[in-house]
Amino acid sequence: MKKRAIVLLSGGIDSATTLAVAKNQGFQVSALTFNYGQRHAQEIESAGKIVKAMKVKGHRIIKINLREIGGSALTDEIEVPRDRPIGAGIPVTYVPARNTIFLSYALAWAEVLDTGDIFIGANAIDYSGYPDCRPEYLSAFEKMANLATRAAVEGKKFKLHAPLINLTKAEIIRKGLSLRVDYSLTHSCYDPLPGGNPCGRCDSCRLRRKGFREVGIKDPLAYEV
Amino acid sequence: MKKRAIVLLSGGIDSATTLAVAKNQGFQVSALTFNYGQRHAQEIESAGKIVKAMKVKGHRIIKINLREIGGSALTDEIEVPRDRPIGAGIPVTYVPARNTIFLSYALAWAEVLDTGDIFIGANAIDYSGYPDCRPEYLSAFEKMANLATRAAVEGKKFKLHAPLINLTKAEIIRKGLSLRVDYSLTHSCYDPLPGGNPCGRCDSCRLRRKGFREVGIKDPLAYEV
Repeated sequence: MKKRAIVLLSGGIDSATTLAVAKNQGFQVSALTFNYGQRHAQEIESAGKIVKAMKVKGHRIIKINLREIGGSALTDEIEVPRDRPIGAGIPVTYVPARNTIFLSYALAWAEVLDTGDIFIGANAIDYSGYPDCRPEYLSAFEKMANLATRAAVEGKKFKLHAPLINLTKAEIIRKGLSLRVDYSLTHSCYDPLPGGNPCGRCDSCRLRRKGFREVGIKDPLAYEV
Repeated sequence: MKKRAIVLLSGGIDSATTLAVAKNQGFQVSALTFNYGQRHAQEIESAGKIVKAMKVKGHRIIKINLREIGGSALTDEIEVPRDRPIGAGIPVTYVPARNTIFLSYALAWAEVLDTGDIFIGANAIDYSGYPDCRPEYLSAFEKMANLATRAAVEGKKFKLHAPLINLTKAEIIRKGLSLRVDYSLTHSCYDPLPGGNPCGRCDSCRLRRKGFREVGIKDPLAYEV
């Protein structure tokens, strides 16, 4: 029987690629998506299309309302910046403790499914500078998780896999293409235009476009700018 | 201006006492309660009565559904044990990763409120053996939190206060009484009887009754057994 793993799946390029990597490593994957009140809720539809295309059997969409907490352009009435230079500090699209909350749920579900393997598409190269994407954060979460659960007390190891952590966006896309990820199903834009097309100018669109440009192929999504 | 702190408030003896301790230390307290699908949802009403009696201005009740995850007698169709010897392993009332999930939300809210002080009523003496109540777990959570947020990157320290961690239940009750906590407002039972009275026989009732017995005063709650 295949070993199980949970993959955090937002519906973007990184998480779709991570899902393919986990499958390619031989795991039976369960995907976990959050409907957290994000401005770009259409990424949840993308997550659904990705699990269907990749024939993932277990997909759970957990509804939590991070708008009750706020404090981010993605969950509050704060404008999403466009054409911002990447690398100029932590942007307003940072969502307080988002990955900690997501990983906590993943930890709970992992324990119920009797697995200790969780995959996250965190990346610390072509990224927006979010603190909870850095390797030192992920390592500290793993240590904490190994003290948090009954499974840990019983000697089961919890491992947090971040296979993309040191890749550029272009390397991520190349890896995904080699694993036959269909990027036309993914969604990246933080602030889609009326009608749903990506804005092309938020951090997330710009990192994505830079990746495809560096790979030298056309992004399957349609941009107006 | 008073320094702010967030206190996790379930509505039981430990969290009510922790709230009083935080206030007594001079913090302006915001209380955080979770409606997580627990069997004993009446503790949420108790939390409301406690914040009113203690004149806490900010009280947030966050609705999350841990029944979607399950795996516990408190969130699934599993019977709550009665008359179980305390200390005989981690019981079925253990909820996978519960404190990690609660503390993650507290971390997010703390960042939005611009405070780094979070209080939790965790106790590792008269307790059910839950792994996420142990000091080594809390310390690992604190370390992780100090890498997780924008606030941390900006040099703000996150501190997890667990003032009851090494007290017996009797010592907790004595401390609370000295701070004028009204324990008639609290709720402890995991599996209340029809009508709402405590069962008197689950772990939580038994630890509570042991505490009052050791202090030598009558528990203000009515038990039928």
